[in-house]
Amino acid sequence: MTNRRQFIVACSSGAVAFAHSLSAFAQGGTAPDTLVEDLVAGNRILAMEGVLDAMGHISVRHSTRADRFLLARSMAPELVTAADIVEYDLDGTAIDARDRTSYLERFIHGEIYRVRPDVRAVVHCHTASLIPFADSDVPLRAMYHMAAFVAEGVPVFDIRKAAGLTDLLVRDAALGKALARSLGQKPAALMRGHGAVVVAASIPNVVGRSIYLDVNAKAQAQAIALGGKITYVEADEAKLRMSDAGEYARAWDLWKRKVAR
Amino acid sequence: MTNRRQFIVACSSGAVAFAHSLSAFAQGGTAPDTLVEDLVAGNRILAMEGVLDAMGHISVRHSTRADRFLLARSMAPELVTAADIVEYDLDGTAIDARDRTSYLERFIHGEIYRVRPDVRAVVHCHTASLIPFADSDVPLRAMYHMAAFVAEGVPVFDIRKAAGLTDLLVRDAALGKALARSLGQKPAALMRGHGAVVVAASIPNVVGRSIYLDVNAKAQAQAIALGGKITYVEADEAKLRMSDAGEYARAWDLWKRKVAR
Amino acid sequence: MTNRRQFIVACSSGAVAFAHSLSAFAQGGTAPDTLVEDLVAGNRILAMEGVLDAMGHISVRHSTRADRFLLARSMAPELVTAADIVEYDLDGTAIDARDRTSYLERFIHGEIYRVRPDVRAVVHCHTASLIPFADSDVPLRAMYHMAAFVAEGVPVFDIRKAAGLTDLLVRDAALGKALARSLGQKPAALMRGHGAVVVAASIPNVVGRSIYLDVNAKAQAQAIALGGKITYVEADEAKLRMSDAGEYARAWDLWKRKVAR
Amino acid sequence: MTNRRQFIVACSSGAVAFAHSLSAFAQGGTAPDTLVEDLVAGNRILAMEGVLDAMGHISVRHSTRADRFLLARSMAPELVTAADIVEYDLDGTAIDARDRTSYLERFIHGEIYRVRPDVRAVVHCHTASLIPFADSDVPLRAMYHMAAFVAEGVPVFDIRKAAGLTDLLVRDAALGKALARSLGQKPAALMRGHGAVVVAASIPNVVGRSIYLDVNAKAQAQAIALGGKITYVEADEAKLRMSDAGEYARAWDLWKRKVAR
Repeated sequence: MTNRRQFIVACSSGAVAFAHSLSAFAQGGTAPDTLVEDLVAGNRILAMEGVLDAMGHISVRHSTRADRFLLARSMAPELVTAADIVEYDLDGTAIDARDRTSYLERFIHGEIYRVRPDVRAVVHCHTASLIPFADSDVPLRAMYHMAAFVAEGVPVFDIRKAAGLTDLLVRDAALGKALARSLGQKPAALMRGHGAVVVAASIPNVVGRSIYLDVNAKAQAQAIALGGKITYVEADEAKLRMSDAGEYARAWDLWKRKVAR
Repeated sequence: MTNRRQFIVACSSGAVAFAHSLSAFAQGGTAPDTLVEDLVAGNRILAMEGVLDAMGHISVRHSTRADRFLLARSMAPELVTAADIVEYDLDGTAIDARDRTSYLERFIHGEIYRVRPDVRAVVHCHTASLIPFADSDVPLRAMYHMAAFVAEGVPVFDIRKAAGLTDLLVRDAALGKALARSLGQKPAALMRGHGAVVVAASIPNVVGRSIYLDVNAKAQAQAIALGGKITYVEADEAKLRMSDAGEYARAWDLWKRKVAR
Repeated sequence: MTNRRQFIVACSSGAVAFAHSLSAFAQGGTAPDTLVEDLVAGNRILAMEGVLDAMGHISVRHSTRADRFLLARSMAPELVTAADIVEYDLDGTAIDARDRTSYLERFIHGEIYRVRPDVRAVVHCHTASLIPFADSDVPLRAMYHMAAFVAEGVPVFDIRKAAGLTDLLVRDAALGKALARSLGQKPAALMRGHGAVVVAASIPNVVGRSIYLDVNAKAQAQAIALGGKITYVEADEAKLRMSDAGEYARAWDLWKRKVAR
Repeated sequence: MTNRRQFIVACSSGAVAFAHSLSAFAQGGTAPDTLVEDLVAGNRILAMEGVLDAMGHISVRHSTRADRFLLARSMAPELVTAADIVEYDLDGTAIDARDRTSYLERFIHGEIYRVRPDVRAVVHCHTASLIPFADSDVPLRAMYHMAAFVAEGVPVFDIRKAAGLTDLLVRDAALGKALARSLGQKPAALMRGHGAVVVAASIPNVVGRSIYLDVNAKAQAQAIALGGKITYVEADEAKLRMSDAGEYARAWDLWKRKVAR
């Protein structure tokens, strides 16, 4: 982030609060404090922006051990602190659980990290605007440059087609693998009767994609309701736009500052 | 709730405020303080989440006397404290009214408890997203796992068909019985020109169902507007999903913490 | 209001703030303080609920002089205090303007009071949910009991048909009279390319009608979008429901308490 | 503004905060403090009203040098202070950049000021309600008097038709000139796959137009969904309405007071 220093000066009280909980985490974890800090911020930002409610989760791949990832213990995202961050291996086994219970659907994260070396952050959400598209045969399309990644395609994972009758939850590694296969090399997948997964190369980018996927879904639904001819962002335009790896940097700085208040 | 202890420690000021009003209630009522505390929280949560505005109500069956239920005196839900909770018999007669006036439509609650021994909590609401479905012949369908119960079916109660010309309100036991018949064994019923009733086996679950029924209605309306083919959650998937009695526990913990602030 | 006394005790700090500004008004006006207090509250409630933004206004007929009404000076409703309330005759002439400028469209109020002795309060608004119906030939219909008055019919005033080319504003008595003729004996009228007027027998009722007209419009639009058959509240049901003159009393108490915070 | 004096008295703490940062700006810039103050307020108002999120920008032409304009450094609008305002020539070159980085798309502003001497303020936004119209062949139409300017026509700029394959961003002067040509003499233009530009003769007016363009777009989409015949504001009505240069003055006073809190 370009203005990280300004951020720390401006939000000193918030920064202190983060620092305090970080030391608690540091007693048990092996990941750098800055990664944990960003994961905590990501949890709170997604709750603040309405992408996550009490359910759903965000993870990040360990910065030095590619076979591990970090994820909060089973709890509401907006309450997560550094002390709630648990380290997992790709099978979804907690390295140092202590008395912290795990999200039932942690397999979503591990199985995606296993087959997507480019992915360093994963969001699983039930955002209301995505459910209509998850249940419909109308595909998500890219409406504008802030959600250009949608132009790469957002497949729908139908758990029934993959695994027969279930309670719709990704309860084990087999279901996680099936979802990861549906996702393929795409930036996101919808889950029929359930929600979505969004992936990216960093926490700021997976948070940005999740937030703008929500905006994009609402805008597309509205465009369809207008009844005219729609020109979506084309694949070659989107590819050029996505070459900017810091496309959500300015937004990330703002969001992080807001949740630190 | 798994982290009840943490909750009490974290929200000490809110907990004190609840405790104070609980003692006021304890002077007249026979229900345990924890039940009254949850009913107060339920009132405030439903107001916070926009399911209830100044109107509508939530009740709970007495924990040791199955022929009684608890309901606030006639007032806006977001202002309810323990001192406002009144105990009723199933006919809707207040056991210890003192100077507390009763909701006109308390018969909704008593008549449902009478014929549904499985029901321990009832919400009556006018949530704006439900009115279009209450007045339409398009049935509510389950869009995702958070509202899986909708797959059991949500009948529409048309008071005119049941009782001829009325002012649309459930003003007496006969109208309450007619509504309870319409509800049958279902988890919710819409009321034409009026709103809905939602039932469950606990306060957290009736609050969770009311909140996610609202989300589901909006998502379904949006899916219909997309104009494609919709695949709803199927009955057998929903039945498996609903076997988890604590499905809204994590959300309940978050909501309760928020209204205690 | 049934629990006025409780209200005053509970919101002492807010009550003090109102009282202070009331004395300022009392130096120049002839209306009772309680009427001015309710008009100030009405302004703030309509802003809080999103019915009014920086524009629009609410008036009340003088309680003892039927040929006068009270209306804020030209300013944003959410900032109105008792010192901003001006007394007008039915021609829209301020009795004691001092340095307080008048709303350009005050003729809306005077001309309605002139021909509708039953009306004691008027709201003029540009609520976004009403504009689609104001510009469309699809009539507003009553969706539920909280907006039963809509079943009496909500005509559309097209200023061009009444007065030829204008800037759409009700700038003088002649345009005010034309609008009042369109309104007739109805509880509300839409204004093409502009907004709406809502009338009632009291401030709480005109505020309640304005708020629930907004909810009703959104619900009706959504019901139409579902594409099914809609059963609206019927005229005889609505008439019975409207016989309760205190239908918005509980809501009024809540709203007033909130703006006093 | 008519009640500027009242405003300054009422919001003394906010006024002090602005004054402090203004002195910081005064060390490097040549524009009057009041212009900078209004530009800071405009940034914060557009963020508060949801017209801008972390992205987008608002500029103003220098009050005494018509070949210069003021624009914040590259940052989120809701965080802008006077010290962040940079002076540019029409080529988009910063006069006194110091360590302040520039918005990539500053060419939008310079190229519009170059060919539109009547324009003194420009907003570039990605408001979600505008994207459906930017991507659709359904034109924006004026729904009500608060957005009368829409009746002059809002063209769509398709960057692909103007310049072939791009990443959708207005990265240089040539693209800025193409956008300015699309805008022509109109008050706003939509940008396919991107957002919009809005122009006016003052900061209050460009802010007012941006806010009501958003309201208008939502209302028009809703009117279309009703399925009836729509009567839009006609060009001659709009022209009369727009002859009031202070049409957003009352709203501007309210907005400015709110962001000063």
